[in-house]
Amino acid sequence: MWYAVIFVPVALAIIYSAVLALWLKRQPAGSADMVEISKAIQEGSMAYLNRQYKTVAVVAVVLAAAIWFTLGMAVALAFLVGGIASALTGYIGMNVAVRANAKTAEAAKKGLFPALSLAFRAGSVTGLLVTALGLLAVAGTYYVSGGDIAALIGLGFGASLISIFARLGGGIYTKAADVGTDLVGKVEANIPEDDPRNPGVIADNVGDNVGDCAGMAADLFETYAVTLTAGILLGSLTAAVSGSVEFPMLLGGVSIVASILGTFFVRLGKKQSIMGALYRGLISSLVFAAIGFYFVSAYAFGGSYLPIYLSSLTGLAVTALMVVITDYYTAKQFRPVKSIAEASKSGHGTNIIIGLSVGMESTLLPAFVIALGIFVSYALAGIYGVAIASVAMLSVAGIVVSIDSFGPITDNAGGIAEMTKQPENVRKITDALDAVGNTTKAVTKGYAIASAGLAALVLFSSYASEVKNVIFDLSSPKVLIGLLLGVAMVYFFGALTLRSVGRAAGAVVDEIRRQFREIKGLMEGTAKPEYGRAVDIVTKAAIKEMIVPAIVPIVGVLAVGFLLGAEALGGLLIGVIAGGLFMALSMTAGGAAWDNAKKYIEDGNFGGKGSEAHKAAVTGDTVGDPYKDTTGPAINPLIKVVNIIALLIVRFLH
Amino acid sequence: MWYAVIFVPVALAIIYSAVLALWLKRQPAGSADMVEISKAIQEGSMAYLNRQYKTVAVVAVVLAAAIWFTLGMAVALAFLVGGIASALTGYIGMNVAVRANAKTAEAAKKGLFPALSLAFRAGSVTGLLVTALGLLAVAGTYYVSGGDIAALIGLGFGASLISIFARLGGGIYTKAADVGTDLVGKVEANIPEDDPRNPGVIADNVGDNVGDCAGMAADLFETYAVTLTAGILLGSLTAAVSGSVEFPMLLGGVSIVASILGTFFVRLGKKQSIMGALYRGLISSLVFAAIGFYFVSAYAFGGSYLPIYLSSLTGLAVTALMVVITDYYTAKQFRPVKSIAEASKSGHGTNIIIGLSVGMESTLLPAFVIALGIFVSYALAGIYGVAIASVAMLSVAGIVVSIDSFGPITDNAGGIAEMTKQPENVRKITDALDAVGNTTKAVTKGYAIASAGLAALVLFSSYASEVKNVIFDLSSPKVLIGLLLGVAMVYFFGALTLRSVGRAAGAVVDEIRRQFREIKGLMEGTAKPEYGRAVDIVTKAAIKEMIVPAIVPIVGVLAVGFLLGAEALGGLLIGVIAGGLFMALSMTAGGAAWDNAKKYIEDGNFGGKGSEAHKAAVTGDTVGDPYKDTTGPAINPLIKVVNIIALLIVRFLH
Repeated sequence: MWYAVIFVPVALAIIYSAVLALWLKRQPAGSADMVEISKAIQEGSMAYLNRQYKTVAVVAVVLAAAIWFTLGMAVALAFLVGGIASALTGYIGMNVAVRANAKTAEAAKKGLFPALSLAFRAGSVTGLLVTALGLLAVAGTYYVSGGDIAALIGLGFGASLISIFARLGGGIYTKAADVGTDLVGKVEANIPEDDPRNPGVIADNVGDNVGDCAGMAADLFETYAVTLTAGILLGSLTAAVSGSVEFPMLLGGVSIVASILGTFFVRLGKKQSIMGALYRGLISSLVFAAIGFYFVSAYAFGGSYLPIYLSSLTGLAVTALMVVITDYYTAKQFRPVKSIAEASKSGHGTNIIIGLSVGMESTLLPAFVIALGIFVSYALAGIYGVAIASVAMLSVAGIVVSIDSFGPITDNAGGIAEMTKQPENVRKITDALDAVGNTTKAVTKGYAIASAGLAALVLFSSYASEVKNVIFDLSSPKVLIGLLLGVAMVYFFGALTLRSVGRAAGAVVDEIRRQFREIKGLMEGTAKPEYGRAVDIVTKAAIKEMIVPAIVPIVGVLAVGFLLGAEALGGLLIGVIAGGLFMALSMTAGGAAWDNAKKYIEDGNFGGKGSEAHKAAVTGDTVGDPYKDTTGPAINPLIKVVNIIALLIVRFLH
Repeated sequence: MWYAVIFVPVALAIIYSAVLALWLKRQPAGSADMVEISKAIQEGSMAYLNRQYKTVAVVAVVLAAAIWFTLGMAVALAFLVGGIASALTGYIGMNVAVRANAKTAEAAKKGLFPALSLAFRAGSVTGLLVTALGLLAVAGTYYVSGGDIAALIGLGFGASLISIFARLGGGIYTKAADVGTDLVGKVEANIPEDDPRNPGVIADNVGDNVGDCAGMAADLFETYAVTLTAGILLGSLTAAVSGSVEFPMLLGGVSIVASILGTFFVRLGKKQSIMGALYRGLISSLVFAAIGFYFVSAYAFGGSYLPIYLSSLTGLAVTALMVVITDYYTAKQFRPVKSIAEASKSGHGTNIIIGLSVGMESTLLPAFVIALGIFVSYALAGIYGVAIASVAMLSVAGIVVSIDSFGPITDNAGGIAEMTKQPENVRKITDALDAVGNTTKAVTKGYAIASAGLAALVLFSSYASEVKNVIFDLSSPKVLIGLLLGVAMVYFFGALTLRSVGRAAGAVVDEIRRQFREIKGLMEGTAKPEYGRAVDIVTKAAIKEMIVPAIVPIVGVLAVGFLLGAEALGGLLIGVIAGGLFMALSMTAGGAAWDNAKKYIEDGNFGGKGSEAHKAAVTGDTVGDPYKDTTGPAINPLIKVVNIIALLIVRFLH
């Protein structure tokens, strides 16, 4: 019976994804020039992903060997399973996404709903696979290994490894291409965005896919897998009632069904609001999950189901509240974005000051929500309640990632429509979809960070219960030292990643300038730029730049753990979680607010496009780019990977 | 004998300050126009300080009454003593500083050394009074109250209250005036900085005094007083050996003598380096203190003096290292500042991205130094060792504040020389002094923050030892919730203060624009602007804006303490310390680095003044202004005031 609730939904999701993929294959691909551009984006994206996985594979094989010798075969194999499943999710999901971009542009010829529907269905493939393959990997490992928790932690580490590299590499790629292409194209050569004469334009579109699609998928796959693992682990440690170990996986199974059902509710209402359509899908999924959770809670815990059930609802409530709060801080119609736009009137400096202020402020309500979530779920069912709330929150990752992956697809569709000079009505539709994609990307980032924070806290609880005879007392100097070093790690990681984008963008700028200089007839449109060269250069730069920041947490945890001991390491973990949570929240919300403040001005406010205020807003957007798409999201895997490694090495610490 | 080591240095410092003040009185005040401007700055500064103290007095009287009823008369009186002593330090120190500005400009006619010497001596009055009145207040209260620790904590709260208002009000004032004056003057009216036609120019000079002089004095007075208090408290709690209670005050007495001696070593060497002269004074003071500490350690602890003595040396070492690190991150000749300048070539956005990156990176080494300081001093003598290291670090505040107060004096002197059109050679000297003043301001901020962090950790230890039967276990959800709320408080505080500067600067912009519009002949130089109106408007705006952020920590601590209890409050304290320490470090170093990156370009690099790179660097400087002079420094009192209030209310918590 357990098996059925877990594996039937997994099978369903995989079959449904396949059906969607086949349906997408049959949709018209558009005119020859559209197909050509789409092909270039596909090739660039795949080339990047292949190279990224190759690099990670080297690291993974070394680590797998080390794990095999120290922790045994089961853990090493699970580690590989985690890595491969995560890579597979990103691979398949992105494959579908990069084929859907031109088709979305083509569907826009038929109207808003066909285009929305196509882009969302393509995004759903990634979304559903995240949860289906995540649950399959965790539950499969659990059953095959006979409930070996160490193996599950190994699995989590494998997913973490892919995640940190994918987030970093993808994040650096997307922003280096974006910033570099804009700096030469818009500012120096004075040609519009997505102009086919710009040699960096394909790289820019590739970036959307490797960052927002593959990167986000790897991130949430990992969060999902480690949260399930932590839930199972805490269930086994605190199990008063039988069923608490398998229960997290049951929530996962139910939520997959809820997510699939939710996708059918993505429909335009009377107001033709795209955002409304996506939110309808999300809300439906939350409602279905809430109903389903009731039955599995009652099934697993019998008469004493209520506290556990309410804990799972707490997780869903945190999800809903995070979406609302992020929406408030990043959407054009509210005070925060408007205040940045208004500040742009007095110049670049004030735009940045108020943007930074909005980013910082945006952390307050999420902190309250997370604190309240912990408080309520702990009061209901102790630390296991907190774990269940986290699992519940993550369990709806399927629908959330679907909405998120919608973003890069519509972004690409807009670019293709622009480059192939589609008629006004088509571009209007792709622009509208693209604008909504920006908001959904911001909203899912808020969700991803809050869930990463909660997941990490649950992982920390697992770590704390594995460490025997140690209390992580804040009055102990070792704990304090660890805590300070933890926050320092977050700041150092932030500094490195921001600079990486700057350096990689510099490489792009040099290449684009070279092409403009050397290729005759490029500006006149008589010669074509060498898109592939630019793609290749960003790929190499991003891969190179992702290595050092990815190694920082690994080295940091090992150094603090083995030099200062388990107590200091506990402090470090909390320092990374607390420091990272706030930095990531402020960066992603702040970055999205800057982006939309620029769009708000472009809508004709405060002087509109080309005004001094607009120039200041462009500066804010440039700063916001690495904030929201590189550093901020990369902190997610950072705070989880440190906890996973700590769990792996805990038995060797004094 | 105890008495002598404490009170004789206090008397010495007060007498020496009086001698310096009288000597300054006799120095030539310069030409009539210089005196006139200096008078206007004096009046503006005093008017602001009076209004600030009046506002704080209202809050203080209410709080004193509340304290009297809940904690008794002794605590209430000590609270007032702390507030009055802090206010007095700021008042006298600023009074001397604002009289020394024109005299420094006048002395510059005679050469570099006379000007340096005069400005430094004037700064020394503030510096020596900080430690002399601080030690007098703490030691006096200790002896009069018969060693009543509660009274000492009351004293610390009084000092904290002045400090948070002075840092906030002064910080908002100085940057609102600076940013507002520059926005209209430099950008809109296209007239140079410090041009007498600009109606905001006096307000700008007033800001230097109320922010960098009075604000810094109040900040370090408080840190000094609360660190001594925490040292005495931990001495009484952990006292294995007699003498450990009075010992912190002995260190204070010795350091006052060391600081006075150090001031005599401020002399130009062969290279005529101003920075070298100031560092010579600082290093001499550190060496004298290290020697003096040996004798008082041996005297107080007899044969077992070594661990305590080494702990005190650890504190001095942390001071020296913080100075070196901050210098590296903020001085023009090193990689960080140069990298920001270089990034300015590609525009406003990249300048900001790299500046933010430098600010974040600049926290890593200080974190290592602080962690190492805690590790070593704890290994030597337990938590008492950490307290002694903090006291030793703070004990040299006298010489540090002297060097810091040098900054606003030379800044003003430069402004006066500019406004009165002094000959080239005079302005060259005042410019050179001013440039060094920028570095010393940054360096002392690094010191102030590191010492505030260490002091707060010692205060937290006192709090933890006062709370009976509670362990601040990081695996407890209450502690975690408190921790998250603590970091959230820092971010919210940061958001509020950044926005305050924006709003207050907006008020200044409106007034300056009005004067340019309404006063005929202003631009032609035939009519004079109404400086007083601008001063008045910044004063009102700054006082208004400082209230809300100052109330946040008070309300936050009371709410968490009484609603969630002592355990959650402990988490909050550490959250504020850890979150605040890093934010303050990154903001002050980042801000100073932006400032000097602009100066580096103005030296003729990357296109020099007027180039596109320079424009981008000006944007960075504008963002850096509230970072380094408002929000960053205001976090210092924030992290101490929450700990002091927690200590005050701890007996009422469950």
